[in-house]
Amino acid sequence: MPSQSRVRVIVTGGTFDKEYDEIRGRLFFKDTHLHEMLRLARCRLEVEVEALMMMDSLDMKDADRERVVASCRNSAEDRVVVTHGTDTMAETAAALTRAGLGKTVVLTGAMIPYAFGSSDGLFNLGSALSFAQVLPAGVYVAMNGRVFPGDRVRKNRETGVFEALP
Amino acid sequence: MPSQSRVRVIVTGGTFDKEYDEIRGRLFFKDTHLHEMLRLARCRLEVEVEALMMMDSLDMKDADRERVVASCRNSAEDRVVVTHGTDTMAETAAALTRAGLGKTVVLTGAMIPYAFGSSDGLFNLGSALSFAQVLPAGVYVAMNGRVFPGDRVRKNRETGVFEALP
Amino acid sequence: MPSQSRVRVIVTGGTFDKEYDEIRGRLFFKDTHLHEMLRLARCRLEVEVEALMMMDSLDMKDADRERVVASCRNSAEDRVVVTHGTDTMAETAAALTRAGLGKTVVLTGAMIPYAFGSSDGLFNLGSALSFAQVLPAGVYVAMNGRVFPGDRVRKNRETGVFEALP
Amino acid sequence: MPSQSRVRVIVTGGTFDKEYDEIRGRLFFKDTHLHEMLRLARCRLEVEVEALMMMDSLDMKDADRERVVASCRNSAEDRVVVTHGTDTMAETAAALTRAGLGKTVVLTGAMIPYAFGSSDGLFNLGSALSFAQVLPAGVYVAMNGRVFPGDRVRKNRETGVFEALP
Repeated sequence: MPSQSRVRVIVTGGTFDKEYDEIRGRLFFKDTHLHEMLRLARCRLEVEVEALMMMDSLDMKDADRERVVASCRNSAEDRVVVTHGTDTMAETAAALTRAGLGKTVVLTGAMIPYAFGSSDGLFNLGSALSFAQVLPAGVYVAMNGRVFPGDRVRKNRETGVFEALP
Repeated sequence: MPSQSRVRVIVTGGTFDKEYDEIRGRLFFKDTHLHEMLRLARCRLEVEVEALMMMDSLDMKDADRERVVASCRNSAEDRVVVTHGTDTMAETAAALTRAGLGKTVVLTGAMIPYAFGSSDGLFNLGSALSFAQVLPAGVYVAMNGRVFPGDRVRKNRETGVFEALP
Repeated sequence: MPSQSRVRVIVTGGTFDKEYDEIRGRLFFKDTHLHEMLRLARCRLEVEVEALMMMDSLDMKDADRERVVASCRNSAEDRVVVTHGTDTMAETAAALTRAGLGKTVVLTGAMIPYAFGSSDGLFNLGSALSFAQVLPAGVYVAMNGRVFPGDRVRKNRETGVFEALP
Repeated sequence: MPSQSRVRVIVTGGTFDKEYDEIRGRLFFKDTHLHEMLRLARCRLEVEVEALMMMDSLDMKDADRERVVASCRNSAEDRVVVTHGTDTMAETAAALTRAGLGKTVVLTGAMIPYAFGSSDGLFNLGSALSFAQVLPAGVYVAMNGRVFPGDRVRKNRETGVFEALP
């Protein structure tokens, strides 16, 4: 059983947090929806939200990934959830794995922005916070009900589905 | 890491599945929302949904709880999620614990009906399906981001919050 | 063309404003959703909201209807929308008609609470505010895209549909 | 009082009908949401939906506007609602005004896609269908609770708000 210790959520942007810009008619980033989502979920787990960056994961450079690794390393909590765009989530998971942090880090995201009524984001957040509480130290990707080792997962670009690598 | 084996979801009703009857102006049960929720969640985990009953958990009798226990016992899957009204979830969890099934059974529910826009149900479902994949055999209650042993939990009726018993 | 003069919205409760009480598991009234609805609608019409009462229209007595009539009479605006429970909306419309106020008064409501994701409330509010701007002095019921004279309408209790009386 | 005659809704696309493409992570058009919106609104007005085109109004050419004019001219109904992107709604309204159709034509749209939970679309649709039933022959723009003559309106690109021209 988990000890109900605090979990850190590091926000990096991604589809999760995309908003609709009603003046320009396109998607953009404003503020993270994490606080609103935790409130809607009536989340009783102690969660520390760290809004690190707000990026489309296709625009992430190595230096950005290094900032994510550093935040996980510096986290006072040894159980961490990272919200991340799906397109390069596997690359960041691989970078976190290589860093050998000795913590439980779970990456998650959404196929549909939370601001849309039909998002998978709330489900994925519930899933990631749960895996983060019980899985042993390591890096994982939790998407759409499944969990994968951080160094053996990819997103199938045609279907949008995360798949295990052998 | 979980083996990605199939999880059974046994539906018993509860706030999760309450609908608004627009002719009579009151809440009622019609069909389970589980299929719609799993579709919204774009759930890629193999899930077998069993619509066992549609009850307000305040109306549950011992015989109803025995049916829940029997369904869990007869489940081909050894990882089971039970959706349940919150008011007597702890009683059913205790009954399941006493039954000693040797399976991982996670009870979950919602404080707000899924049909309301602002439900915690999707978050709780993501959480329960995740705990069910990784926790060892035993009975658990997963609500609002936390997980409790099935024989040491109660719902605080004043605050609506689930609490650990010593 | 309407002169874009201000419209008063008098709130009386009804399904429109029902909320889900997550502690007691039943529907109740808290605050009106009118302000949130007007914000969501990005309403650019000048609207004065008056929260007069928060009642299930089945509980309305003659004295309550008299308060609604008095508010419409005292309104500085000569174009008024009244949000109202559907069950006795026709009775209040008849009382308002008998009062002969010389103003345009449009009653509206919802079959499903606004707090549910699938409410007709926002559509009905847009409809009522529009009819209120252009119809001549008189009392009207605007529901689900149609408009009826306030003294020749009833709600069919079996189907939930408003119908014209001959 | 309106005679409850049938209203035609001519769909041309616009923000109203934008969807989120979860594979490519961008907005696109698939099918119109009009049928779903009318169902949610429990619309009891007789409505004939004509899905004419699915375009971003910034991409509309003169030939596209001619098709909209022709559809309005050929409509068996003399009361018509046109759903349209907001960016060039005023241009199409001007073209319809010049055509002198002798029908009541109301253009409407949305600042936020209907597929987002927080859209103004349902409110605007209720508003447009109501204005269309009661306004005399002519061309109008109905947005966010207000109505404008079709030849004296513009969208303020900085604020996103429709304004009357003198």
